[in-house]
Amino acid sequence: MSAKDVVLRGLISPIKSLMEETQVVLEREITDPSPAAQDMLNHISRFRGKQMRGALLLLAGEATGATSDEHPTMAAVIEMIHLATLVHDDVLDGAEVRRRVACVNQRWDNQVAVLLGDFLYTRAFGLSLTLKNPYCSCVLSETSRKICIGEIEQSTMRYHFDLKQEDYERIAGAKTACLISAACELGARYPEAGYSEERDRFGDDMAAYGWAVGLAFQIVDDCLDLEGDPEKVGKSVGTDAEDGKVTLPILCSYWDSDEATRRAIREVYTKPDLDKRAVRLHDVCDVSRGVEFAMARARELVDSAAARVKELPESAARDALVDIGDYVLERRW
Amino acid sequence: MSAKDVVLRGLISPIKSLMEETQVVLEREITDPSPAAQDMLNHISRFRGKQMRGALLLLAGEATGATSDEHPTMAAVIEMIHLATLVHDDVLDGAEVRRRVACVNQRWDNQVAVLLGDFLYTRAFGLSLTLKNPYCSCVLSETSRKICIGEIEQSTMRYHFDLKQEDYERIAGAKTACLISAACELGARYPEAGYSEERDRFGDDMAAYGWAVGLAFQIVDDCLDLEGDPEKVGKSVGTDAEDGKVTLPILCSYWDSDEATRRAIREVYTKPDLDKRAVRLHDVCDVSRGVEFAMARARELVDSAAARVKELPESAARDALVDIGDYVLERRW
Repeated sequence: MSAKDVVLRGLISPIKSLMEETQVVLEREITDPSPAAQDMLNHISRFRGKQMRGALLLLAGEATGATSDEHPTMAAVIEMIHLATLVHDDVLDGAEVRRRVACVNQRWDNQVAVLLGDFLYTRAFGLSLTLKNPYCSCVLSETSRKICIGEIEQSTMRYHFDLKQEDYERIAGAKTACLISAACELGARYPEAGYSEERDRFGDDMAAYGWAVGLAFQIVDDCLDLEGDPEKVGKSVGTDAEDGKVTLPILCSYWDSDEATRRAIREVYTKPDLDKRAVRLHDVCDVSRGVEFAMARARELVDSAAARVKELPESAARDALVDIGDYVLERRW
Repeated sequence: MSAKDVVLRGLISPIKSLMEETQVVLEREITDPSPAAQDMLNHISRFRGKQMRGALLLLAGEATGATSDEHPTMAAVIEMIHLATLVHDDVLDGAEVRRRVACVNQRWDNQVAVLLGDFLYTRAFGLSLTLKNPYCSCVLSETSRKICIGEIEQSTMRYHFDLKQEDYERIAGAKTACLISAACELGARYPEAGYSEERDRFGDDMAAYGWAVGLAFQIVDDCLDLEGDPEKVGKSVGTDAEDGKVTLPILCSYWDSDEATRRAIREVYTKPDLDKRAVRLHDVCDVSRGVEFAMARARELVDSAAARVKELPESAARDALVDIGDYVLERRW
């Protein structure tokens, strides 16, 4: 077990048995009688990874005293939606490796990856419908809508170097922070815990916490795509530049450059048939300044998330939520 | 207005005002505040076409006395799910034209088409959650799962000339008949109509009717892909052979051929860099025999569907359901 796994295991120790229940639900749900489909589902079960979104839902429940019998099911639903977005993302990005395993679009093809993503979405919705209250289904259908719109906007904003920071954050937020925020809010607000003014405030706190941590997570991801070592990150890097995505660290490097350098950056993005665009960016500008600025913004977001969580009653789960912010900032994988 | 539109208008006259209500729901639901998304949604609104699935749901409601205030919403949900599958199908098939309009994957790209399909799925689920009873959501999440599995199996069965007719029907059924069957069953069984033994039988009748008509529809579609005129069909034809899909008319032609011809058929499917594979199939074998056999099977299915519907009390809606079977067989578009 690597150092990072030890750290994560410590963070989720307050919800260890709930996480185990979540695994049981996932094992049961991510199956199908069709042998062809089962073969693919076995393959993607190796993408499951850290399950940070499910863990955050459970920690939010514990930290706000909302945990119910149905929380592990909700955590599984969130993880299945996340898995669906990963499978579709890999098609969109033309990615090759995810968590050191060949992506579905590589192992089979794009067709199968689109269908498998659809399958996971539909199974996630189906599972959410088994919950006593439709609240979770409603939140997740709205959240999935926002994720799609964020990705569509990102897709239309490719190669746009006039993007403002607020546009980047809105799009990156809709793409990533949205689901993490929904996970945290659901954990704290799921109706079985009953309505009270305090519960409502907890829900707002956890939604804000999730948004900030989620956006920080995406910013770190964008920095890793630009600077990370594929061996450590465990997935393809440099895909943003190949795909024309103008991320915060690049935007910051661009703002920080003179006109000649800006032109060179744009050229690296747009010149046909260029390979290793991310590497070439390092040749034409000082990417490290942009990464530094972006990481400072991520730190600011994590600090605001921690401040929000510190309002909750003291508990091991609350402390874990605070620490997860730092974990997000420090990850190199 | 073309002759086919006049025919269809006659068939759906028993549900004219319910169809108008369905349009209002669709107009309201297929929108988004994001200008980029709205632009794409405006584009795909031109794919809406015949709305046969929504019409069948409403006719099933009328023919079984089950129509409620919520039927137009259910019809809209069904049409949105269908639209989502169309948008994803066009990615899968690499199609260029749908209902004489450029496909999303052509007008924009595959990325956007995947996301827009996801968006439509999620909006459809969101809309189904506004219904009083979760029955519709449950049926549709299960139906969407089956559609995905059908497509996955079809994808893994490409180039398999040892496919049996029952395998073809299972896969084609999961892909197409499933949603049509669910539409018909929902129309007849939606719980607001209350439970009774008769209602239960109506539900079974309509599910069987929908399955048979839906499978016939897919068989006709496969024949049109092989023999149809793209001008009349209104979408790309010949894509099945390009994509390695072994459909019933081709299977029948294959069974009907000697070993040399079979080898030639397989070659047309598999030889790299061949263009116009569907046209070449006509050169190497007598495709018309296969089409004839497949159409006879479609006729058999439509007859069984009609027999099932004739058990219902006499009404204009019931007669329309019978006539729609013939309409499916006679379409050349």
